[in-house]
Formats: sequence, structure tokens, C-alpha cells
Amino acid sequence: MNLVLSLTNVNEAEWIDRLRALLPNRKIESWKNGVSDPEKVDYLFAWKPDPDVFAALPNLKVIFSLGAGVDHLTSLPQLPHLPLVRIVDADLTSRMTEWVVFQTLFHHRDHLMYAAQQEASVWKDHKQPAAKEVRVGVLGLGELGLSSAKALKSLGFDVAGWSRTPKNVLGVQSFFGDSHLDDFLKRTDILINLLPSTPATQKLVNAERLALLPQSGALGGPVYINAGRGATQDEAAIDAALTSGQLKGASLDVFEVEPLPQTSPLWKHKNCIITPHVAAPSDPQALSEYVARQIKRFEQGEPLENLVDLEVGY
Amino acid sequence: MNLVLSLTNVNEAEWIDRLRALLPNRKIESWKNGVSDPEKVDYLFAWKPDPDVFAALPNLKVIFSLGAGVDHLTSLPQLPHLPLVRIVDADLTSRMTEWVVFQTLFHHRDHLMYAAQQEASVWKDHKQPAAKEVRVGVLGLGELGLSSAKALKSLGFDVAGWSRTPKNVLGVQSFFGDSHLDDFLKRTDILINLLPSTPATQKLVNAERLALLPQSGALGGPVYINAGRGATQDEAAIDAALTSGQLKGASLDVFEVEPLPQTSPLWKHKNCIITPHVAAPSDPQALSEYVARQIKRFEQGEPLENLVDLEVGY
Ligand SMILES: NC(=O)c1ccc[n+]([C@@H]2O[C@H](COP(=O)([O-])OP(=O)(O)OC[C@H]3O[C@@H](n4cnc5c(N)ncnc54)[C@H](OP(=O)(O)O)[C@@H]3O)[C@@H](O)[C@H]2O)c1
Ligand SMILES: NC(=O)c1ccc[n+]([C@@H]2O[C@H](COP(=O)([O-])OP(=O)(O)OC[C@H]3O[C@@H](n4cnc5c(N)ncnc54)[C@H](OP(=O)(O)O)[C@@H]3O)[C@@H](O)[C@H]2O)c1
Repeated sequence: MNLVLSLTNVNEAEWIDRLRALLPNRKIESWKNGVSDPEKVDYLFAWKPDPDVFAALPNLKVIFSLGAGVDHLTSLPQLPHLPLVRIVDADLTSRMTEWVVFQTLFHHRDHLMYAAQQEASVWKDHKQPAAKEVRVGVLGLGELGLSSAKALKSLGFDVAGWSRTPKNVLGVQSFFGDSHLDDFLKRTDILINLLPSTPATQKLVNAERLALLPQSGALGGPVYINAGRGATQDEAAIDAALTSGQLKGASLDVFEVEPLPQTSPLWKHKNCIITPHVAAPSDPQALSEYVARQIKRFEQGEPLENLVDLEVGY
Repeated sequence: MNLVLSLTNVNEAEWIDRLRALLPNRKIESWKNGVSDPEKVDYLFAWKPDPDVFAALPNLKVIFSLGAGVDHLTSLPQLPHLPLVRIVDADLTSRMTEWVVFQTLFHHRDHLMYAAQQEASVWKDHKQPAAKEVRVGVLGLGELGLSSAKALKSLGFDVAGWSRTPKNVLGVQSFFGDSHLDDFLKRTDILINLLPSTPATQKLVNAERLALLPQSGALGGPVYINAGRGATQDEAAIDAALTSGQLKGASLDVFEVEPLPQTSPLWKHKNCIITPHVAAPSDPQALSEYVARQIKRFEQGEPLENLVDLEVGY
């Protein structure tokens, strides 16, 4: 019934304190500080864990991912075939929706042009398309993609989404499966990537696909936004498209390598907004409560929520 | 049954073409090019009109304002006591909501800090309050204020509004009348001004009232946003509050004098976002249809919509 944490680049002590308060009468230990009774550990709470942790815990029953994404686990050959629970949390979804809405409006309302005018004390208006004239396309209509799609729809944008399985969401056109992807891209002015990193999504946004985004849209060129995972994009292709002007702008929170290397040319594009993987941080209080709730469910024989399908990888 | 236009700083020809297409069999003329039959003119369509136009049209029946605001008319001593119709239009409301949501998220998500980090190729995250921890206060809960309040509420912000009369809007705390203003300001982290310019709202946002905004909020200091009218703010006080750090940031689309004079110190504050009165431009097609519809209603004996109360000035 004990819990072990293996978290990288995260303040483990903060999580341990909160989890101990919520789950008294259990040992909650950090893997890197040593585990006293490995056979008594039922649960692992992981973020980019030490791959050796799995073999050392012979009676592990459930693995919890600290984040909504689980590629930090599914990419490990050592991952045992156990129930893997990912995070779905209203606070996290709300933060992601803020970030996506903000970056979409940043490009839609041409903030950089008005900022340049302000720098030169220039007062001059420009033609502004209405939201309904701008076609937003969301790659991935899961927990996060759906919330963003709905928020953008309610602001008036013409919204479609692409997912593996068909969706029925009022006012959001559904494209699904590989065979619909080209048509989806051809109708998209602002492409928002909220896909998980899985074997099927590696470098999905590449040069060929960026070239399908229309040059003729209301914004005068397509915009690419990604807060899903960097592994689903080809950054050399994005850099080239920004350099050539094929992309009018971009907003990136996630990258093939993080932290984004100093040598990346992306840093230098004025029309490519870079944030350091902060779109939707995990809130320790909300997520500790979530994990505690799942453990109680599991021990009462109720089904775990938000289980990852290890076959498809998300 | 004829219509005269008196528009300043607006492409009159574009409006005349559209109105002629919608209202055939009437003379539609520009005041500045000369009116052929002044006694046959029933309707005036005005934006910052020539004040002499009123006396020259003896049988005027209705005045239409090209914008949602009517201070350009109510401020004229020559304005006759006739029905005055202002613009309420879904397209205009949608554009204003975009601008307000964008500017709110700009400060909430601390865009300037991340932009400065990008300039220095620095990868570093910062604590980000959840929307629900941030108290937004909307001055003016009319057509535009209400739409903005609802959009921000649905993004998770803690929203209140201040108006002349009480409001009953789900999830939006209602403050009203002069006696509630101080309490409203004391609970507001992001103050959004969407008030009309009337005798009662002149320089309403002044040094004394800015000082009531809490320094202790989740953003580390209050933010002031205005897309209503510049006459409702004291820009010297805003400049002083930005200089002293009392205001953490601002976004201004409207100013006491427009275009904002080159000499205004506001241009130079990096944390004061300036846009040149572009938050919600009037769409010629939508608004021409609106005016044509109102004229038809009037001539069929139906009540005009969105009439201004000349006693209160909006
Ligand atoms: N930047 C940040 O701060 C941050 C924070 C949290 C999460 N994230 C990232 O956001 C990602 C999405 O999170 P979520 O909670 O929305 O995940 P989710 O609920 O699992 O949704 C994933 C979506 O992607 C679609 N999808 C997956 N593989 C696909 C494929 N091969 N073809 C077409 N569609 C495919 C799924 O389609 P179906 O609906 O048909 O299954 C689903 O709509 C996470 O995986 C994580 O990497 C980033
Ligand atoms: N920047 C731009 O591009 C742009 C574009 C369009 C409009 N605007 C400006 O936006 C303003 C608002 O437009 P709107 O369509 O929302 O107007 P509206 O529907 O007439 O709403 C005005 C709101 O202000 C409140 N109010 C007025 N005087 C007040 C006072 N003395 N004390 C407290 N509350 C008071 C009203 O209270 P009650 O509800 O109690 O009456 C109402 O809620 C326009 O007047 C115009 O100046 C700017």
C-alpha cells in the first residue's frame, strides 16, 4: 500500500508533503533517497523516472504519471504492462485553454505589428478580419484540444478538429484518421497542435504538411501553435517556413529537445513566440488530491480513471 | 425619406455605396458634398458630424450614430432632441470581446516577461496563478462589458462588474451605483473599463481610484485596461501609477486625445500596451444593414432599437 515517487526536475519534497497529508498511514518515499520495503510498494508516481525503478519494485500495481502526457513513460522499454493513470484535471485544462486562446488571439489581432508601431509612436489602424473569417484547426480533440476548440468557437472562430476517432461536437467540424489529415490542413489558417507524442505522431507536423496550410486565408498566411509535445513537430521545417514567410507566425511551448538549445534558430524569429513549457503546469495540490482519489478508488475495487491505452500510447 | 451622412475620418463613399444598395429609391448624400433637398431629409447618419448639419435639416426625424458610442453627438450643444439610435451589432461585440480577452490574458500570462526571456534565449518558468485566483472587474456591464465579462468568466476568472443599475448575471458579482464603486475597486486585480463617456463618467478612473486597486493580488499588482472611452480616464494618473509601479501594467485602446499625441509619456511604458482605437471597428456591411433595418422599422411604425437616453447620455 506504499507509494514511491521518481520525479525529475520537480520539487519532490513538495509533492511528498502533500501526498502524506492526503494518504496518512502509508510510507511515501522518494526513489532517489532509497526505498525501505520495495516489496510493499503498490504505487509509483513518476515524471521522467529513473528506468531502474520498475525492476526494483516487484509488486507494483499502478503507475501514475505526474503530467497529462505519458510519453516520458511509454518511451521506456523497461515500462511494465501495468495500469497507467494519466492526469486529467480541471485546473490543468483551464490553464492550457488560457494559453491557447492567448496565443491564437496574439496572431489573430496582429499584436506584433501594433507593438512595432508603439515602439515608433505610430498611430495607424489596419484591417482586422472577424474571428468567423479565420479557420482554426485543432490537432488532437482530447481533454485539452476539446476545451481549447470550444473556447475558440465561443469567441467566434471557425473551428475544426482532427482526432483518431470521429467526434460530435456542436459547431466543431470533425476530421479523423490519416485519410482526413490533408483536407483538414488545407482548410486551416491557425493550426493548433495538442497531440500526444506516440509512435504514430512523431514529426507529424513536417515540411510537407506545413505546405498544405493555405496562403490565401484571412490572416494573410498560416500560423502554427504547439503546446502538445515537441516530438510531434519537425523544427527544421518550422524554422524554414518562418524564414521563407510560408508561415506568418508561430507560438511554441514544447520542443524536440527541452530546454530549447541555445543554438536553435527558433529563438531568433520575432514572429515565433517561445514559452518554456509553461502552458499548463501541474498544480501540486489538485494533482495530489487526484492521485489520492484514484488510490482510494483502486483499493475499493472501483475502476481507475483516465487509463492510458498502452497499445496506442496515449 | 432621404438620408444624409456626415462622417469624419471615415471613408464615406464606401458607406454610401452600401446604403444605396440596401435602400434604393432614396437620395443618400454626403453632407460635405452638398444636400439637394434639405427639407426632404428624414435621417442623419453621423460620426463626429459637422455641428452645422442639424440646423440645415429642418425635418430630421432620426439620427444614427455610426459607432456604439454616442459621445461624439451628445457633446454637441447643437444636437436636437430627436430619437438617437446607436449601434449594437454582434460583429462589433465579438471584436471587442476578442480584444479584451487578449489584453487580459497578455497580462495574466505575463507575456512581457517571457518575451524578454526569449530575447535573451533564456529558458525559465515562473509561478502562474490560476484564472480563478485573479479578480477581474468590468466597469460598464452593457452590451460590450457583459460579453467580455461572460467570456472571461468562462475562462475561469473571478469576475465582477459595475454598472448604474443592478445586474443579475450568473457567476458575475454585481456592483452598482456610485456608493458601490470603492468596494468594487478594492476587490479588483484587473480593471477593465468599458464605460461610455457621459457627464457622470468623466475622468472616473483617476489617481484616487487607481490607488484603491489592491497591491496584494495574485498578479503582484493591478492591471488597468480601457477600450471604452479615453474621456473616462485621467492619463496623467495612469502614467504616474505606471511610473511608480503602483500599476503592474495597462492596455489602452482609447485616449483623452486621439490620435494619442507624440508627446504622451504613455507611448514609452513597455508595460502599457497601446492600440490605436482598433478594439472593435464598425463593419460597414453589418452596420449598413442595421441602419436600413431600423429605417424600415421606423417607417412601419415599429419602435426603433437601441435608442440612447439623452438624459443620462448613453
Ligand atoms: N505544454 C504543456 O504544458 C502540456 C501540459 C499538459 C499536456 N500537454 C500535452 O498535451 C497532450 C494532449 O493532452 P490531452 O489530455 O488532451 O490528451 P488526450 O485526452 O489523450 O487527447 C489526445 C488527442 O489526440 C488524438 N490523437 C492521438 N493520436 C492520434 C493520431 N495518431 N491521429 C489522430 N489523432 C490522434 C486523440 O484522438 P481520439 O480522441 O480519437 O483518441 C485525442 O483526441 C498530452 O499528451 C501532453 O503531451 C502539454
Ligand atoms: N474602442 C472601441 O473600438 C470601441 C468600440 C465600440 C464601443 N466603444 C465604447 O464602449 C462603450 C460601451 O459600449 P456598450 O455598447 O457596452 O454600451 P452600453 O450597452 O450602453 O453599456 C454601458 C454600460 O455602462 C454603464 N454605465 C454608464 N454610465 C454609468 C455610470 N455613471 N455609473 C455606472 N455605470 C454606468 C451602464 O450601466 P447600466 O447597465 O446600469 O445602464 C452600462 O452597463 C461605448 O459607449 C463606446 O464608448 C469603444
